[in-house]
Amino acid sequence: MLDKLSQWTSTSVFNMILTLIIIIVLVLLLLYLVKKTAETIDKRIIATTTDPDRRARLRTLRKAAKSTAQIIIITVGVLIGLGTMGIDIGPALAAAGILGLAISLGAQTLIKDMIGGLTILLEDEYRVGDYVKIGVVSGEVEGITLRRTDLRDDEGRLFMVPNGDVRIIANETRDWSRVLVVLNFRYGTELEKPLAALEKALARLNADPQIKPYLLAEPEIYGWDGLSDWAVVVKLSAKVTAGKRSEVSRVLRQYAIEALHEAGVPVDSFVR
Amino acid sequence: MLDKLSQWTSTSVFNMILTLIIIIVLVLLLLYLVKKTAETIDKRIIATTTDPDRRARLRTLRKAAKSTAQIIIITVGVLIGLGTMGIDIGPALAAAGILGLAISLGAQTLIKDMIGGLTILLEDEYRVGDYVKIGVVSGEVEGITLRRTDLRDDEGRLFMVPNGDVRIIANETRDWSRVLVVLNFRYGTELEKPLAALEKALARLNADPQIKPYLLAEPEIYGWDGLSDWAVVVKLSAKVTAGKRSEVSRVLRQYAIEALHEAGVPVDSFVR
Amino acid sequence: MLDKLSQWTSTSVFNMILTLIIIIVLVLLLLYLVKKTAETIDKRIIATTTDPDRRARLRTLRKAAKSTAQIIIITVGVLIGLGTMGIDIGPALAAAGILGLAISLGAQTLIKDMIGGLTILLEDEYRVGDYVKIGVVSGEVEGITLRRTDLRDDEGRLFMVPNGDVRIIANETRDWSRVLVVLNFRYGTELEKPLAALEKALARLNADPQIKPYLLAEPEIYGWDGLSDWAVVVKLSAKVTAGKRSEVSRVLRQYAIEALHEAGVPVDSFVR
Amino acid sequence: MLDKLSQWTSTSVFNMILTLIIIIVLVLLLLYLVKKTAETIDKRIIATTTDPDRRARLRTLRKAAKSTAQIIIITVGVLIGLGTMGIDIGPALAAAGILGLAISLGAQTLIKDMIGGLTILLEDEYRVGDYVKIGVVSGEVEGITLRRTDLRDDEGRLFMVPNGDVRIIANETRDWSRVLVVLNFRYGTELEKPLAALEKALARLNADPQIKPYLLAEPEIYGWDGLSDWAVVVKLSAKVTAGKRSEVSRVLRQYAIEALHEAGVPVDSFVR
Amino acid sequence: MLDKLSQWTSTSVFNMILTLIIIIVLVLLLLYLVKKTAETIDKRIIATTTDPDRRARLRTLRKAAKSTAQIIIITVGVLIGLGTMGIDIGPALAAAGILGLAISLGAQTLIKDMIGGLTILLEDEYRVGDYVKIGVVSGEVEGITLRRTDLRDDEGRLFMVPNGDVRIIANETRDWSRVLVVLNFRYGTELEKPLAALEKALARLNADPQIKPYLLAEPEIYGWDGLSDWAVVVKLSAKVTAGKRSEVSRVLRQYAIEALHEAGVPVDSFVR
Amino acid sequence: MLDKLSQWTSTSVFNMILTLIIIIVLVLLLLYLVKKTAETIDKRIIATTTDPDRRARLRTLRKAAKSTAQIIIITVGVLIGLGTMGIDIGPALAAAGILGLAISLGAQTLIKDMIGGLTILLEDEYRVGDYVKIGVVSGEVEGITLRRTDLRDDEGRLFMVPNGDVRIIANETRDWSRVLVVLNFRYGTELEKPLAALEKALARLNADPQIKPYLLAEPEIYGWDGLSDWAVVVKLSAKVTAGKRSEVSRVLRQYAIEALHEAGVPVDSFVR
Amino acid sequence: MLDKLSQWTSTSVFNMILTLIIIIVLVLLLLYLVKKTAETIDKRIIATTTDPDRRARLRTLRKAAKSTAQIIIITVGVLIGLGTMGIDIGPALAAAGILGLAISLGAQTLIKDMIGGLTILLEDEYRVGDYVKIGVVSGEVEGITLRRTDLRDDEGRLFMVPNGDVRIIANETRDWSRVLVVLNFRYGTELEKPLAALEKALARLNADPQIKPYLLAEPEIYGWDGLSDWAVVVKLSAKVTAGKRSEVSRVLRQYAIEALHEAGVPVDSFVR
Repeated sequence: MLDKLSQWTSTSVFNMILTLIIIIVLVLLLLYLVKKTAETIDKRIIATTTDPDRRARLRTLRKAAKSTAQIIIITVGVLIGLGTMGIDIGPALAAAGILGLAISLGAQTLIKDMIGGLTILLEDEYRVGDYVKIGVVSGEVEGITLRRTDLRDDEGRLFMVPNGDVRIIANETRDWSRVLVVLNFRYGTELEKPLAALEKALARLNADPQIKPYLLAEPEIYGWDGLSDWAVVVKLSAKVTAGKRSEVSRVLRQYAIEALHEAGVPVDSFVR
Repeated sequence: MLDKLSQWTSTSVFNMILTLIIIIVLVLLLLYLVKKTAETIDKRIIATTTDPDRRARLRTLRKAAKSTAQIIIITVGVLIGLGTMGIDIGPALAAAGILGLAISLGAQTLIKDMIGGLTILLEDEYRVGDYVKIGVVSGEVEGITLRRTDLRDDEGRLFMVPNGDVRIIANETRDWSRVLVVLNFRYGTELEKPLAALEKALARLNADPQIKPYLLAEPEIYGWDGLSDWAVVVKLSAKVTAGKRSEVSRVLRQYAIEALHEAGVPVDSFVR
Repeated sequence: MLDKLSQWTSTSVFNMILTLIIIIVLVLLLLYLVKKTAETIDKRIIATTTDPDRRARLRTLRKAAKSTAQIIIITVGVLIGLGTMGIDIGPALAAAGILGLAISLGAQTLIKDMIGGLTILLEDEYRVGDYVKIGVVSGEVEGITLRRTDLRDDEGRLFMVPNGDVRIIANETRDWSRVLVVLNFRYGTELEKPLAALEKALARLNADPQIKPYLLAEPEIYGWDGLSDWAVVVKLSAKVTAGKRSEVSRVLRQYAIEALHEAGVPVDSFVR
Repeated sequence: MLDKLSQWTSTSVFNMILTLIIIIVLVLLLLYLVKKTAETIDKRIIATTTDPDRRARLRTLRKAAKSTAQIIIITVGVLIGLGTMGIDIGPALAAAGILGLAISLGAQTLIKDMIGGLTILLEDEYRVGDYVKIGVVSGEVEGITLRRTDLRDDEGRLFMVPNGDVRIIANETRDWSRVLVVLNFRYGTELEKPLAALEKALARLNADPQIKPYLLAEPEIYGWDGLSDWAVVVKLSAKVTAGKRSEVSRVLRQYAIEALHEAGVPVDSFVR
Repeated sequence: MLDKLSQWTSTSVFNMILTLIIIIVLVLLLLYLVKKTAETIDKRIIATTTDPDRRARLRTLRKAAKSTAQIIIITVGVLIGLGTMGIDIGPALAAAGILGLAISLGAQTLIKDMIGGLTILLEDEYRVGDYVKIGVVSGEVEGITLRRTDLRDDEGRLFMVPNGDVRIIANETRDWSRVLVVLNFRYGTELEKPLAALEKALARLNADPQIKPYLLAEPEIYGWDGLSDWAVVVKLSAKVTAGKRSEVSRVLRQYAIEALHEAGVPVDSFVR
Repeated sequence: MLDKLSQWTSTSVFNMILTLIIIIVLVLLLLYLVKKTAETIDKRIIATTTDPDRRARLRTLRKAAKSTAQIIIITVGVLIGLGTMGIDIGPALAAAGILGLAISLGAQTLIKDMIGGLTILLEDEYRVGDYVKIGVVSGEVEGITLRRTDLRDDEGRLFMVPNGDVRIIANETRDWSRVLVVLNFRYGTELEKPLAALEKALARLNADPQIKPYLLAEPEIYGWDGLSDWAVVVKLSAKVTAGKRSEVSRVLRQYAIEALHEAGVPVDSFVR
Repeated sequence: MLDKLSQWTSTSVFNMILTLIIIIVLVLLLLYLVKKTAETIDKRIIATTTDPDRRARLRTLRKAAKSTAQIIIITVGVLIGLGTMGIDIGPALAAAGILGLAISLGAQTLIKDMIGGLTILLEDEYRVGDYVKIGVVSGEVEGITLRRTDLRDDEGRLFMVPNGDVRIIANETRDWSRVLVVLNFRYGTELEKPLAALEKALARLNADPQIKPYLLAEPEIYGWDGLSDWAVVVKLSAKVTAGKRSEVSRVLRQYAIEALHEAGVPVDSFVR
């Protein structure tokens, strides 16, 4: 019996120990690679981000990714080691597989939300303070986390939008904005007089010291911009600094209406 | 025959016993890790939650998670042990796999609801008493469980919303709220008189002792805030404490309409 | 040849019998556990349910769950036993897998319906006799089974709603209800007179011996509750016992209209 | 060489034959179980169904289910037998798996239709001759098969609805029905006179010998049942036998309109 | 060396050849079964189909199904044979699996279309020449293939509808059709005169020699069939042969309008 | 040691070489079959296609399919060969499986687009130059590739429609088209005069030398084709060559309006 | 013991080393193939792209694809090598499989976005500067990345559209565009005069030196282009250079309205 034991030990134990050493070396190598990669990301990507808020969030992300990779490598290493030592790891693999599938299916929306959040952060689609429209919801961005974006609308409602629902984004405060004022003149109105009046309104806008700094170009008139069922459409347009659209448009509307009043031209209304 | 038996016993039984010992040690180690993690979560996350209602619910969750983890570890351990003892555990794994898949597919919505509930609790998106809008349903939160949120609307209907359907949330009672009153003045109306009257209405609101404590800022007028097909739009705005929007807006509407009446300015209506 | 046979028998048969004994012990153990769990559920959950209708249904469910668990345990045990006896059970597993997948995919809606029914029963979301709204369908609950809910609407139509389609529920007969009567007063109407008249109507309601028992609080008026395109909105509100909303609201509407008539105030209509 | 052959035969062939016998016994046992179950279903469920049309259909279903179970059991038995005889049945299993998946995915709607049909038959949701609404389609049921339901609408169109699309059903001919006639009285109308006239109309309906047998309760008036933008809403209600709604409602409308004419009260129309 | 070779040959080759023979027998048996089944389908189902167009199409389908079954049986047989000959067929199975999955997922709509086509053909839901409505598209059926149905609408557009999109079908040319003419009489109109006039119109229709052959029953009047916001609704109804609805309805409308003219009763219009 | 080596070599190497030869023969056979099939498709299907544009595209498709089949066959052959040579090809299979699944899931839409394109090409649903409607987009087909269809609408916009989104197609330029002109005559208008006038308009159309060649049948009048809320509907219908609908309809409208003018009959309008 | 070791070494080590050499050769071969393919793509596809912006982006893509292929080949090679060396790589494969599935399911939208981006780049569907409409969003393309397309609308909003949401594209600046001006003439208007006036307007447009260069064909009039409920529709059409539609249409509208004024013909409006 001793002989049998020694024989079993000789070959198998030798084999096993050799294999275990190879496994440990490989695991250490992979852990080292993960560490190096994390450091590179830190240096090349995160350190070059100017916005401190975003930098902090990216760093947290990087740490979480590193830990996840480390846990996976060590778990796989342990399982391979156990398998080498003769333990049937089938049930452990099966449990992992079923859990993985269940999570993949059940938590799909959660994973989607997080991947959406990652995209928003990495692509810098909007920042805290931007005025954006996401789907049917629009408001000022109050906060961005990995799972959701918080928007505050004009009436003070706080919208919590899961990042997975963030698909088409309209960012109203990027680079520049354009004020468009639409006026209807009923068919039969001669357009010369109103156009002349509107020209005056634009000149007055261009000369307004409170508005002037926001104007990025001379405001323009587009006459006959459309024919509706009951009116000719005229548009006034002014390119302004991002975020100043509502201020400038209120003033432009005021000047336009006042100029038309002075010129005695009625802005026609659908209801009479 | 005895000799064969002894030979079979010698190597295999030795092998099996060694393996079983390793398995038991590993299972105990994992159970210890689970216990430690649960304690850490208790200390670091749950104990720091101020809301007692939420704390109780988080503790229940933590206990359920711990039990689940323990059951999985013990089951996997038993299956590995059985495999080591020479029992073909394929059918058990297959049954687990099929059940896991069936549950993953069939009970997807249920799992989604629970993950949604987890998110609401962990992210503290709303609490009992908040006035929220979820999809097309809005009301006061009457209860939050892991699977559903109960809302009570203005007419006393109790809406039971599965948490998986909770995507975009509008919380109307967070931090602050804004009252917006929209007034239409038909084209042709001189806006000076109405604007002066509305200024008086705002002053009266700001002086009202019942309203004053709720105002977070001086109320404002936005003239020419829009041009509809038949009217110039004027908006009154007041930033108020969260949850006081309807009270303040009723008073502001009253003061505005009364001020316009006194000044003899008609608020124009679409129908005449 | 006999020698070979005896040798084969000695080790293998011994091995096989030992394994079969372990399997049988395990199967019996699991069956005992299932029985104990079922008894615990009976004592702790079902026995504490007050509604006898629901208790009967929960007991049926519990029995079905127990039988299913027993069948699975015995089937898996038999398959493992067969595998141990040297029969290749691969095809049986494959057939089970394909059937399981086909059922999971094809019968998803059926499974969803049943899980939905389970949720409704366990969470007690509504009972027979409640007036609920499910999606676009509303009516009185006439019956609840594991697969569907039957609603009877005002015109006597019987709606059969699969429980998997039951997501957001509005239960109109829980705890309390609120009557809201909305009245429009055209711009230009002085609101003092109508408000005084409506106060009288509320007092009359509060004094009505047929209505009084249903009122849970003093009815209230909300003046200037909104500004539509053509009118000021006034709301009357009364908190009533659940299920008495339509009765009280008819009386409140009558008193309000009559009071306005007496006071000579027109309720303005959109059409003239 | 002969010796080797004999040695191979001795152990393996013995083993194989023993296994084959066990397999055959098991297959026969399962086939017997299937037969017994089918007979039980016949006796307990199908024989108790009163509707002969449905009974015939359920019997067909039961036969199809039995044949399917038999084919599966025999196929699995043959495959296990082949595997025991040393034939690598992997490719056959793989082919079955791929076919099963392809069918599960591709024919999902077909399977859904059939499961839907099964549900309709087993739950007896509607029968030939009922007037039902399924989704946006409504009509009289002309036929029910396992895959589809045929409805004939008022204009004689034959709608063929796959049973998988049958979710929420409104059965208008179950137990009873209610006639509702809605009348609008413009604001400013005194409601006493019309209500008295309508009382007379209801009395006349209750006395009508052709209608009387269909009335399950005294018809009622609900005054002030709603306030629209331009009118007070009054409703007449009568509970009638299932399937007599349109007959009774035509008569009730006639009596109501005639009674109002006689009383000289105008039913107000939206358009003037 | 020769000895080893001979030894290897003796047992393995014997084993292999025996197995190959069993496989070949089984493959031939299955091919024979497929052939017999195809012949049975030919005799029992296809030969009994009266429509030659459909019979031809069913025959093509049957041939395709037979070839597919034959290819699958032979391929599986070859793979099993190769496996028996010691070739590792894992990669071939894997390739088949991946291709099968990719096709199942990617070509789902195509497979759905074909299964839809199969259903239409087997259930005989519509034939070339029928006037049907599928979803929002309606027209005369110009052609049916396994993948699509071609409809020609009133303006001559050829709609090509994939059979997978064919769910709820409205076949307007099955058995019979009903003409419904809806007339509105403004509130205040005495209905006796118009009803008498309409009775005359129906009698004239019933006497019209061109229309008479299409009438399956006496045409009827439904007075007070509805109360809209502004009018009492009266309906004329006539059951006609399938496909003659538009012809008869034009004549019925003409007679009704003319009878009302003659009787001096205005058909009231929404717009005045 | 040499002895062991030679022994290992003798049986295994012999076995391996034999297997490799079988594999190579099978691979060559399959490649030959693929080549033959491709040639058959070339001769039977592609050579018979009349449209050169489509023929070229089908040929490209055929080449791509052939290359894909060749790559799959060779890869599978190499993998089987490697497996035979003792290399564990599990990881390669796993990598292929994961890649295959990822592509199947992620690139589903792309695969769907291509299968859609294949269908369009093989079924010849539309060609360059046809005027089609796909979903909500309509225009002239400017190009068809395997992935997308390009349509140019009336305002010159180039719509690029992925072929996977091409489901229900309305081809307006197949075989023939029908002009339909709808005219409304207000209730109270005697229809004899307008019908006579319209008869003249149709005669004039039929005699027009520019229109005559496009008419495939005598134009027709459908009187009393409908009763709207305010008018009797009359329809003019003319069957014309495909693609000439707008030309003919303009002329028909002109003639109809002019004939009614001459006859002094007003075409009534909804707005007055 | 030494003897056993040497024996084990002799055969196994020899086997292992031979296998490892074959693996290394295969890996190097595949890497070489990948390099060659990348170079070919560079030469044949990328070098022939004229747009430098697109060329740069395609090159980046090509590099990423090459790296991915290299990583996969090396990883698979290492895993096969480990397997050959006796290490159980099951857990590593399982981890890869679960990760692959989780990513496939969870990151589906992300993968779809990238495949969408690839399609846009390879098919050159639009470039920076084009004016396109994607779904409900339209604007000038400001940037294209692999994941998203940035559009700037008329009011300066920056829309970020994930490429996976880019399905049907309307490119308004490809090759040419057409100006369409729609005019309504109320029934009863003689069309001769307005048509003559509009002819003059077209002649004036054709003679305008600022517009002439953009006209690709003589502008045309389509009279009687439609009959609405209240008017005859006349259309003016002019084919212009891509991107000049709004400029030319404004001028064409102006000339048309002015010409009608001069001729004294009213353009009729829906509202009067």
